[in-house]
Amino acid sequence: MNFTIRAARKDDCKDISRMIMELAIYEKMPDQVKISHKELERDGFSSNSFFECLVAEVPEEDKTKDGHTVVGYALYFYTYSTWKGRSVFMEDLYVMPEFRGKGIGKGLMSKVAKEGKGKQCARLQLTVLDWNTPSLDFYVAKGAHDLTANEGWHFLRFDEEAMANLAKDAP
Amino acid sequence: MNFTIRAARKDDCKDISRMIMELAIYEKMPDQVKISHKELERDGFSSNSFFECLVAEVPEEDKTKDGHTVVGYALYFYTYSTWKGRSVFMEDLYVMPEFRGKGIGKGLMSKVAKEGKGKQCARLQLTVLDWNTPSLDFYVAKGAHDLTANEGWHFLRFDEEAMANLAKDAP
Repeated sequence: MNFTIRAARKDDCKDISRMIMELAIYEKMPDQVKISHKELERDGFSSNSFFECLVAEVPEEDKTKDGHTVVGYALYFYTYSTWKGRSVFMEDLYVMPEFRGKGIGKGLMSKVAKEGKGKQCARLQLTVLDWNTPSLDFYVAKGAHDLTANEGWHFLRFDEEAMANLAKDAP
Repeated sequence: MNFTIRAARKDDCKDISRMIMELAIYEKMPDQVKISHKELERDGFSSNSFFECLVAEVPEEDKTKDGHTVVGYALYFYTYSTWKGRSVFMEDLYVMPEFRGKGIGKGLMSKVAKEGKGKQCARLQLTVLDWNTPSLDFYVAKGAHDLTANEGWHFLRFDEEAMANLAKDAP
């Protein structure tokens, strides 16, 4: 099957938003999704962007039964390591189930790596749920290290209320 | 003890670089530090910045025996959640051992939270090594959730070589 990978445009945000929800359902946390295509348009496609995004597109003749031709996406942004410098973080990588096994996920991830190398990034990072062994196996097979298992790194979060409490005490 | 928290300037990079190494020694991975103050100056203090940084400063009369008045830092950047939107990630929080227990770490972190709120961020995130219980306890006491322990999120990394291999296959 032919597919194209290209930078997302503002008018892809409805497709991206649809797939964000599909991914959250797969991750068993659909009630966590609080943003819509409107926030994606504002935060990714203005002069002050918080992320970059690639989409995978198939030809019209391969569209889904619901008429979708945008069938996958990778959303990423640039971060910084005080040990290694510039880094790229892939927040989401998703391909619709009926389009898996065709190299689309690998293509999206490779393109994120290429974009990161273009910015002299020394590493590509991501997070995965421990029960999601198909994804974990996919990333490890492609050369990723599990830093949580190997070095003991834990991921911590202050949610909105805890963050507001902290901010109140700022000097 | 009095202390001031302020945005880091380009001429703080030697102090920040010194403390990055002190923190890496504490984390038992000093050989991992590959960047110097020069990369910090380029990547944090130009028109295309990859991070922001706060420093904590004490008055001249409280300087260290080596003459340092910049005794702590917090380095952070903005990321994006496809569930919650804008987020802030605190890469490093460090206070020199002799200045701990005086509210400097809390002050730096609170200020990061305040800056994040100013950009409408919905969460503040960070990573911690699992054996570093003083830090883990500190963050949890201030309201953080351990997402690795509670939800099973693992942190994965493609290092430079694995990333280059991926990039070669980009469509």
